[in-house]
Amino acid sequence: MFILNERLRNDTAEVVKLGLCAVLLMNESALPWLILVPERKGIREAHDLLQEDRVRLMEEICLASEIIEALYKPDKINIGALGNIVAQFHVHVLGRFKNDRAWPGPIWGSGTLTPYSEKALNVALNRFKEAFDARSR
Amino acid sequence: MFILNERLRNDTAEVVKLGLCAVLLMNESALPWLILVPERKGIREAHDLLQEDRVRLMEEICLASEIIEALYKPDKINIGALGNIVAQFHVHVLGRFKNDRAWPGPIWGSGTLTPYSEKALNVALNRFKEAFDARSR
Repeated sequence: MFILNERLRNDTAEVVKLGLCAVLLMNESALPWLILVPERKGIREAHDLLQEDRVRLMEEICLASEIIEALYKPDKINIGALGNIVAQFHVHVLGRFKNDRAWPGPIWGSGTLTPYSEKALNVALNRFKEAFDARSR
Repeated sequence: MFILNERLRNDTAEVVKLGLCAVLLMNESALPWLILVPERKGIREAHDLLQEDRVRLMEEICLASEIIEALYKPDKINIGALGNIVAQFHVHVLGRFKNDRAWPGPIWGSGTLTPYSEKALNVALNRFKEAFDARSR
């Protein structure tokens, strides 16, 4: 059975489940930051996925990327699968801005997160949910 | 016509051309670090690629990842598409070690590179070339 890593669960709120991945919203109000976690047991690296899941993963990354672009108009999308801290395979897809705290460096490990207020979190979650819902119909 | 970005060209040596990507070896002797560049004009984001190229990209990322794992036995593979500095779409696929200079943080922007000697570069290039050649036969 697939069980979401506790740290990933604690740092995020669930947006939607796609064909392969749970899409999570990182609790970081400064940037639109999604984390995609393939709901498969025992995956550490992209190449651990079966071929059909690799194809799904790429499609779901691109969908997340397009939705972030449409909703937030970032200067650049950053995609990363690191897993040096949390071994359960997960992919970051986030929008970057030329005036964000880490530009042009990577966002990972770049400083303290600014959590959403409860209200702002709900607004962001609903925007993302509606956008994924509209695209999966 | 596709033209490789000058900075990417200056920082790397070509390993092989796959179906979609040119595979480049980053001139960083501390880590096995490949950069995959889809040879398509005008691509900034993963979702700019056609669907068939997205599938190829994922397969080529996984191939690069498997080869790094087989040759260097890293503790973790890191994959990243940032492009905050070089806009031409490119994907980093590299092996990380628990004793490397940036662990567990991201390698990008983590400090000064240690270039290969000419001899060591040729050894690394030949190892990678043979490994890709063996897998594409």
